[in-house]
Order: sequence, then structure tokens, then C-alpha cells
Amino acid sequence: MPTTKADLPTPALLIDLDAFEANIRHIFSQCRAAGVSLRPHAKTHKCVEIGRRLMAAGAVGISTATVAEAEAMVRGGIKGVLLTSPIVEANKIDRMLALVERDPTVMLSIGHKLELDRLAARAAETHRTVNVLIDLDVGDRRTGVFPGEAALELAQAVKASGNVKLRGLQAYAGHSSHVKGYDERVKSSQTAVGKAVETRKLLERHGFDVPILSVGSTGTYDIDSRIAGVSDLQCGSFLFMDNHYRMIGGRGSAVYEDFKPSLFVLTTVISSAHTDRVTVDAGIKAVSTCVQAVPEPKDRPGLHHKWTGDEFGIITADAGVALPKLGDRLEFIVPHCDPTVNLYDRVHACRGDNVEAVWTISARRETPLV
Amino acid sequence: MPTTKADLPTPALLIDLDAFEANIRHIFSQCRAAGVSLRPHAKTHKCVEIGRRLMAAGAVGISTATVAEAEAMVRGGIKGVLLTSPIVEANKIDRMLALVERDPTVMLSIGHKLELDRLAARAAETHRTVNVLIDLDVGDRRTGVFPGEAALELAQAVKASGNVKLRGLQAYAGHSSHVKGYDERVKSSQTAVGKAVETRKLLERHGFDVPILSVGSTGTYDIDSRIAGVSDLQCGSFLFMDNHYRMIGGRGSAVYEDFKPSLFVLTTVISSAHTDRVTVDAGIKAVSTCVQAVPEPKDRPGLHHKWTGDEFGIITADAGVALPKLGDRLEFIVPHCDPTVNLYDRVHACRGDNVEAVWTISARRETPLV
Repeated sequence: MPTTKADLPTPALLIDLDAFEANIRHIFSQCRAAGVSLRPHAKTHKCVEIGRRLMAAGAVGISTATVAEAEAMVRGGIKGVLLTSPIVEANKIDRMLALVERDPTVMLSIGHKLELDRLAARAAETHRTVNVLIDLDVGDRRTGVFPGEAALELAQAVKASGNVKLRGLQAYAGHSSHVKGYDERVKSSQTAVGKAVETRKLLERHGFDVPILSVGSTGTYDIDSRIAGVSDLQCGSFLFMDNHYRMIGGRGSAVYEDFKPSLFVLTTVISSAHTDRVTVDAGIKAVSTCVQAVPEPKDRPGLHHKWTGDEFGIITADAGVALPKLGDRLEFIVPHCDPTVNLYDRVHACRGDNVEAVWTISARRETPLV
Repeated sequence: MPTTKADLPTPALLIDLDAFEANIRHIFSQCRAAGVSLRPHAKTHKCVEIGRRLMAAGAVGISTATVAEAEAMVRGGIKGVLLTSPIVEANKIDRMLALVERDPTVMLSIGHKLELDRLAARAAETHRTVNVLIDLDVGDRRTGVFPGEAALELAQAVKASGNVKLRGLQAYAGHSSHVKGYDERVKSSQTAVGKAVETRKLLERHGFDVPILSVGSTGTYDIDSRIAGVSDLQCGSFLFMDNHYRMIGGRGSAVYEDFKPSLFVLTTVISSAHTDRVTVDAGIKAVSTCVQAVPEPKDRPGLHHKWTGDEFGIITADAGVALPKLGDRLEFIVPHCDPTVNLYDRVHACRGDNVEAVWTISARRETPLV
């Protein structure tokens, strides 16, 4: 195993453990103070080792975006796994039911009668009972049923299904997570989550038990955790942070700094023929692009990154700032953490310059490694 | 093994073998007619199975962008592997020298005296002889030494090094490959490649044997193959095509259609709550974004794709065109083939709806699978 960063071939994905652990401590202390649970999202890290650390820190479960992520987490021994994305394919339904068989704490999300019918039919055929949340579209316009009467109707269909049991609601307000400016973000998220809270009350008035209302993003954790009626947060990016999140602004600050950047891509300068630029060995295949944000050289003020294709990146320097030399190494804060992690099979957990562990990103494949 | 597309969990990466094979036939017939060799680039496919098919079709070798790609191809029994990217790290130099030990037809590219010195030192220490091309920067401004005197000086240093042997030049004109409009592209590529041809002559006048001049991209294959002095093309995207390449225009046509799209991402409609859109299960983690081009629904005129995050895509329809239904499947031509292939571990080789084979994308990892 490589023992220091200098031993790693580049491009390489790094975690700064001090920052990573501080981010975990911060969000759990905030959630505890607010009286909400945390079911952090594995779509960010796709890594069982990280899932276990979050459970040890007090998570009530792990949220997942794909069947492969759910499989990796369940096989890794993690309880309370929630699949937040809708599924309609027979093979995915069967894979999820196999997980439920292994671990009855696994939950799915349902946003449409057809999803429910397919799940209920297979659950009945295989004599299984499966717990679900109803997925609400509170303005995100990507998945879920509309809040209010439409959600109530779906809840009644769940009740009538027999083998599918309602455990609550989820409402991811993706349109609120990156609203720029704290006050604007408060307005956006309170409006969105408010619809979910009202739906929870509506269901309860109709006799439903609704123990879970899972919401939230890294951009709104402190807003959503204070809304009465919210039980769980499902944030993920708080672990790593990225430049897109830093740009949304914090409470009274231009940069959002509630969490520290802990994820970096390590690169090497591999060409230096020009006086105005050098080339590093990390392009689009090593750092996922993002319309809203750029890769930022870590601790190197005056240096700037420019995309230049799949294999390479270009570094330029402000006047008076020296360019790095051929063979030098640079780390970058990434524009968007989730799809960048998804480019790698392993991440190097570092304490300072030491590589303490190499963790497998086991759930990035269509079929997980574990 | 899945036997038809309908069995595949989505998102899934597909090759249409009829189009793929037609693309291979077309480029080899053009290269044969022009009297140039083809050393197609594995950065596009990262797949040993595809490398073998290209060798069987008559390739003189396979170009690679990373040490892992070179390792995968050499271990897969492919001769004439060329690493086109510069390397300066000790561990990568040692890995390449281990490949040279196994197969002396492996070549590296050198763009700077420091690269040469490090390679020559390790080659001498390990008693190996290694063949190289000099990498020229003919306007791409990413890697390589400047053509003319600077290249001659580097060639002389190679000669003096003892263990490193000059086999020729490479000049990738990345700034010419996607120039819009055929006539403009001819001008751009002739100017760029012309500098490499002049450098070849300069070296020959100084007594160097320069058997190889490797250039070319999918956008300029028919331009570059006609330039006297060019010996090899190293195109890659011709295998698959993508929307970015289609947009550059062909000889007398608005769409570049010398090659057929053969690479597709298969998706499922997983949400349909709105009247103006449906959601598919392929986002930024399943289709690499590209500033210049968008994913295009295959054989579905009037449908359009819109990015909506890491996990999902949105489909809208022109007036009068029906939206797909929940559970329906859609295929997409991708914006940019290389980084999209890089998101997957396997590709499904299909003849019509039948899955004939599943090929491992073995070289996308930092350490190859084979």
C-alpha cells in the first residue's frame, strides 16, 4: 500500500481525514441539537467504509440512489438502507426484494401507482413484506408524486396493496439545495419542505402512521432540520464539499463554509513547454465538469485551472505568480463531488501527507464489488 | 448473460455492432487507399476486445493515453502499443519499462528533456532499450516539444542517451479535430501537420531515421492521410462517433456522417408525473457532459434531452409529439464518446436487439483488470 501521497500515481482521489471527520462531527452535532436523524446519502461516496463510519457516528441508515449502492451497503452490514430513486424494471425490483429478504430494515421509495403495483405484485409472489416511503415532488420536478391529495391517494393504494407498508414520506428539494444566498435558500426550502409537512399532516388526519419525513441537502441542512415535522435529513455532499456548494454562500458570508473541503484530486504537471501555462494529467475523465463551478488549485492562490479535454488540464498563473514546474504536484478542490467520486475505483484516506487507508468505491459499478 | 436489450438493467452502454463494424471497414479502406497505417487510440474504448478487433482489421498497433491502458493492451497480447501521453513519475516509468521488457514493440512519447533523462536513467539501470516517438506541439498547446530546432535538439539528446531509441514523431492536432466546416478543418490540420512533416525532414537532413510520423483525429482522418510524410493515423472516435463530432460538418454536408453512431446509452423512463416532461434514469454519472453537444434520443424525432443532475435526465417533446411513458426505454447518442465510455465497466455488443457479447472496459481503472 502507498504510505504517502508522493507514492500515488496520478490522477488520484484523496480524502483529507481531518476535514472529513470535522464535517461528520459538525452535521451530527447540528442534527442532535435540532432533534432530527441523519440518513446520509451514499450517492456522494458510493463507499461501504464511509457508510460504516457514518453509522458509527450515529446515522439511522444510509440513503442510496441506485440498486447497486443499496446492495453494496446492505452486503456491508449497514442497517436502515433507503433507496431514494424510483424503479420500474423487474430485475431491479427483484434485486431490492432480495435485499429486503436479507434485511427487513431496507426501504424503497414509491412515486407512482405503477411502481407500487409492480413492487406489490412481486412482493406477493415471493411472500415478502416491504417498507416504503412515498416520494413527493415538492418543486424539484424530477421524481415523485405531487404533495396533497395525489400523495394521499397513493398512500391509500399502498395500504390496500397488502405486502407494501407505508413508513413515511421523502421530499428532496433539489431546486433549493444550491440557491445562492442564505436568505433566498431559506425561502425556497421552507416553501418546498412545507408542502411535505402539510402532506404528512394530511395523511395523519386520514389515520396513517407517518413516522418518517426525510428531506434535506447539504445546502439546506440547518434550514430543514429546524422545520417542525421533519424527522430525517438525507444530505451527502457535506462529507466532501465542492466548489459548487462553496459558491452558494453561507449565513452572512460569500463562501459557504459550514463544511470544509475534504475531497481532492491529486495531479502531476506533465508538460511545461509554454511560458503562459503548464499541463496537468487530469482532464474530464479525472474531474467531472460542472457548468456552475471550476476545479480550484488547493493552497495555490493565483493559479487557475482550464479544461482542455479528456486527459489533461491547463494551469495558468496571475501576473507575478510562478507557474508550477514539470513534475510538480497539485491538488484540486473539485467542482462537483458526486460525479467526480464516480470516476474512481478507490479513494486514498490521508492524514496530512500520509495515506492511512485505501477505500474501495464499491458501488460505482452496475454490480457492486462487495 | 443477458440475451436481449430488454434484459439489461439501465443505464447501460451499448454498441450497435453493424454500425461499429462499418466504421472499422470504412477507415481501414480509406487508410489503405491513402497508403498510411492505423494505430487507433484506445483512450476512446479502453477495451482489450476492441483492441483485438482493430488489430485483426489491420492496425499496426494501438495508441494509449495512460499507463493502465498500455498495460491492458500489452497483457491482452496486442503488439505495437504506443503511449501518447508524457510521463514523469518514477512509478509510471517503471511500469512502462516492465511492459517494454515483456514486449519490445511498446513505444513511449517524449516531449521534454526531463522526461527523456528520467526514462533513460531507469532504462540504463534496468539494462533495457526503449523505443520512443518525439511528441510535437503543433498548435494544440497541451503537450510536446515545439517543432523545428527544439525537436531536433531533443532528438539529438535521445541519440546521446544510449538506451532510448528514436523511432519517429507524433503530432496530435487537438485544436484541428473539431474545427467546424470541412474547408476550415483542412486549413487548420494542413497547417498543423505541415509543421510535423517539416520537422521530419529536418531530422532526416541531420541523419536521423524517422520511420514514423503519427498524427490524426476522427475529424481529420481523410485530410491527414493525404499529406505526404504522414505514416500513421491515431484516430479513435471513428469507432463510436458522438454528437460533438457530428456537429463539425462533413465534406459538403452540415452533419459529419463519414462514420455512423454506434455507441448508445440505454435508459428507462422512471417518472412521468408532469405533462411537459418525463424523467429517465441517466444523468451526469451515466452520460458525460460536453459544453458543445447534447445527448440525442435515437430514432425519436421531436424528443429532447435536458440535464438534470447526477442521477436523472429530463425528456421534453415538441408540440404534437407524444412523451414516452413510464417504464419505456430510450437510447441516446452521447455528446462525447471517450469520457462516457470511461463511466462504465462493461459495454454490451448488440446485433439489433440481441446482446451478442459483454466486453469489459478493462483499462478504465487506475490498474487494469487484465
